[in-house]
Amino acid sequence: METVALADLRLKLDGNGLIPAVVQQYDTGEVLMVAWMSEESLRLTFETGTTWFWSRSRQELWNKGATSGNMQQVRRVLVDCDADTLVVEVDSPGPACHTGHRSCFYRELRSE
Amino acid sequence: METVALADLRLKLDGNGLIPAVVQQYDTGEVLMVAWMSEESLRLTFETGTTWFWSRSRQELWNKGATSGNMQQVRRVLVDCDADTLVVEVDSPGPACHTGHRSCFYRELRSE
Repeated sequence: METVALADLRLKLDGNGLIPAVVQQYDTGEVLMVAWMSEESLRLTFETGTTWFWSRSRQELWNKGATSGNMQQVRRVLVDCDADTLVVEVDSPGPACHTGHRSCFYRELRSE
Repeated sequence: METVALADLRLKLDGNGLIPAVVQQYDTGEVLMVAWMSEESLRLTFETGTTWFWSRSRQELWNKGATSGNMQQVRRVLVDCDADTLVVEVDSPGPACHTGHRSCFYRELRSE
């Protein structure tokens, strides 16, 4: 794994200043959720060691799990080749999904 | 894992008719890439058992690995609670990244 400093990278944000972040349980590899980060939420994520996102529906910063106490502990942040997507490896003590499921991806999609 | 039929679900596409798809190696859990699917590319993915995406830069459908022969074999497609993101579990025989890395996420991002 290579490393790159945030200051040395130009993140490609979308038209709303956001970048998608795939949140993955660090040891099992389970994809827990995908959410959006702003530069400010990424900064807060590094600063606090817990995940911060930008809620597009509520238009506000959001410290995942702060209400329930199940904050996601950040192990590592990865950036892709195009610098337009992040993977955030975390240790998630509780369910990541508002439905109570551990992962938001609890349904298999079938074509028929 | 629950199952849901594509016909019974209203996928939430973005303003361009696209939905982000996290492509994950089915057995190791490694996140290989994140790309965008249109309804047509999702249909082709189910139909062929290999991944099809919509290239936003080239504005065309794209059968991942078709040029190199390293097409991603689809094992399972998952959909999230909001129906606005997919996880595509695949068996990827070759590198997923145009840089030659197995995953596009080959760099750890550090805050300093």
